[in-house]
Amino acid sequence: MGTGPFGWLEDSARQRAREGRSRRLRPRGHDSAMLDLAGNDYLGLARHPSVTRAAAEAARKWGAGSTGSRLVTGDTTLHRQLEEELAAFYGSEDALVFSSGYAANMGAVTALAGDHGTHLVCDRNNHASLIDASRLAKAAGARVSLFEHRDCASAGSALADAAEPRRFLLSDTVFSVDGDRADVAGLARVCRDNGSALLLDDAHGLGTLGTAGEGALGDAGLRGAGDVLTTVTLSKALGSQGGAVLGPRQVISHLVETSRSFIFDTGLAPPAVGAALAALRLLREQPRLAQRVRASADALASELEARGQDAGAPQAAVVSLRAPSPEAAVQWAERCRESGVRVGCFRPPSVPDGVSRLRLTARADLGAAEVRHGADVIAASRPQPGE
Amino acid sequence: MGTGPFGWLEDSARQRAREGRSRRLRPRGHDSAMLDLAGNDYLGLARHPSVTRAAAEAARKWGAGSTGSRLVTGDTTLHRQLEEELAAFYGSEDALVFSSGYAANMGAVTALAGDHGTHLVCDRNNHASLIDASRLAKAAGARVSLFEHRDCASAGSALADAAEPRRFLLSDTVFSVDGDRADVAGLARVCRDNGSALLLDDAHGLGTLGTAGEGALGDAGLRGAGDVLTTVTLSKALGSQGGAVLGPRQVISHLVETSRSFIFDTGLAPPAVGAALAALRLLREQPRLAQRVRASADALASELEARGQDAGAPQAAVVSLRAPSPEAAVQWAERCRESGVRVGCFRPPSVPDGVSRLRLTARADLGAAEVRHGADVIAASRPQPGE
Ligand SMILES: Cc1ncc(COP(=O)(O)O)c(C=O)c1O
Ligand SMILES: Cc1ncc(COP(=O)(O)O)c(C=O)c1O
Repeated sequence: MGTGPFGWLEDSARQRAREGRSRRLRPRGHDSAMLDLAGNDYLGLARHPSVTRAAAEAARKWGAGSTGSRLVTGDTTLHRQLEEELAAFYGSEDALVFSSGYAANMGAVTALAGDHGTHLVCDRNNHASLIDASRLAKAAGARVSLFEHRDCASAGSALADAAEPRRFLLSDTVFSVDGDRADVAGLARVCRDNGSALLLDDAHGLGTLGTAGEGALGDAGLRGAGDVLTTVTLSKALGSQGGAVLGPRQVISHLVETSRSFIFDTGLAPPAVGAALAALRLLREQPRLAQRVRASADALASELEARGQDAGAPQAAVVSLRAPSPEAAVQWAERCRESGVRVGCFRPPSVPDGVSRLRLTARADLGAAEVRHGADVIAASRPQPGE
Repeated sequence: MGTGPFGWLEDSARQRAREGRSRRLRPRGHDSAMLDLAGNDYLGLARHPSVTRAAAEAARKWGAGSTGSRLVTGDTTLHRQLEEELAAFYGSEDALVFSSGYAANMGAVTALAGDHGTHLVCDRNNHASLIDASRLAKAAGARVSLFEHRDCASAGSALADAAEPRRFLLSDTVFSVDGDRADVAGLARVCRDNGSALLLDDAHGLGTLGTAGEGALGDAGLRGAGDVLTTVTLSKALGSQGGAVLGPRQVISHLVETSRSFIFDTGLAPPAVGAALAALRLLREQPRLAQRVRASADALASELEARGQDAGAPQAAVVSLRAPSPEAAVQWAERCRESGVRVGCFRPPSVPDGVSRLRLTARADLGAAEVRHGADVIAASRPQPGE
């Protein structure tokens, strides 16, 4: 064991190495020629000229940073514009932009449910940011229960225990690791039966679900519902950075007044606001982008299936392939990388079931030849048993 | 009381209104002619042409967003460059960039101290992000104690209780509301006497303290210390957005492998990375910016004192003026605004001692005439007793 107050980190690193859980950064270059099947830029907008031009324009016009909390100097009419257009896109009364999706989940959950008298009922595979938010709410006195993954009946019985006056059901709409979808309409029914509010994290639904990328709510007939709150990120389909909460006006006002990750955080930088706004406008002008990303995920999955890989039928823009061990997943991803294909490699503790896998993402601008090439490389790179 | 699952928010809003704690957003325009004595753009770099050009350039070259977690696709050589230059500037072995200062504090504290066997000893006036991080660490099993504000002896006696094998002392270097400074050298001594690690949040010290803006550590003879970890934000003196942790290499590696707000969050957007890097280079080229912002804070405080306001002697770039009540603080700030001067208005629960105040900030590029005009307006706007 090392010495000094950080000496224990050596042991801790050694143990992660033994368990196949070491991680390291691999910065990419700006002119990388690799085929990207790992990013969350689902619509290919992060480098779209209108989006990058909007970021540049916002930097020039507003500055590189927002200079303060949105409640002090960090709020601009550009933020307000984005909020209005996001709210209109989701059919919600109002919206509030945070500096990240993580901060949006933290802020919404702790401000609304961080209290005695609240019962939070959470899908056990929820995203880490919702989990951290629930933990913080629990530390402040809320009760937290988990329900079985995507199981409305299990959620319903947790909610039916009405010991607390305020109840919230928390779920991702599209689960980030496997891209499987929650039964949003079913969850909404269960909530209504129990007088509970529903909080949905539509990070992977915005831009990829619905006929025009309107996300999971439109699909489930919940546009503008007064008992539903939605969080989104601006960092995936919108190709930028930041997060937002969408919902009834009184909820948004409550967040402005009480949400700690909103109040005590610098407002989102203008270039990120401008870029997200430009991307949202592109999505409105080109509603078929959402269908295109789903078609490209379907194509990727069938090309993989045709090559003997168990890819299943994607429910959104993510395809996931299980690996026999963390080490095998790392090796698999490494070989893909060596062959010019970037794939996500997810291992414990970033996977809900302890099973390591490759996480592949589709993009609206992936061509058929790229999909076939990606599938070729991934299938050929799979480590063989006993290897 | 309203109806539906969010009905209780009405009562809650009414209560805040009664307590003078309502808040609302006031988006500013890009061409506002107001005198800004409220933002944290201490060096005036957020709109510096080199900084905004770097943001625009990064958007064009790298895209508006980073497209994923830094462990998947969100890491670029631009992020690495910023980390290397930040580490060199602080004299630390390594650095890690997060999407905000809030996320950096969350990530560092929960990854290092979110565990049974850890004792976190915290200044009771620490920033909300350190408080939230400590709460989350506590929920995971750590013990959290508070010590009296800026009191090394009080910190020492908390640390001397050696029930836990791992101990951390957490403090802001410059406290955000009043701009008062921690005795960093004293805290470091206390930590060494007790085998404890020291985690300092230098959000308001970077760029404003030291002969060349090197922050609180250089000043205290702690550059490169192996038992000290520093967090900074890129959103104040560097005029951008994001945060960073600086410290020994093994600590940074530990954060890469285990920090949830790093792993489960999209990497900082390239325009913000590029802008922060450009601002850091400007600060290196113009080391006197730091002295200039302090001189301008001193000038603002003495002009206010000359007008009968109790501004005291600023220890960094913040000047604070107490108000008799939350309502008086709001009225004071509102009158300043009407006279073209933007000031911060801080009320419970954003103030450590329950006392509402105006929070004023200096900027390296404030002219003497602006300072005098600001002081005139602020003094003339103070609500009179009984008003
Ligand atoms: C489901 C889900 N929610 C929230 C987030 C956090 O969003 P952000 O990266 O903008 O913090 C992510 C991914 O990062 C996610 O996958
Ligand atoms: C002392 C301190 N730490 C951390 C933060 C958070 O930094 P950021 O705004 O980059 O999240 C702030 C202000 O916002 C601060 O004042």
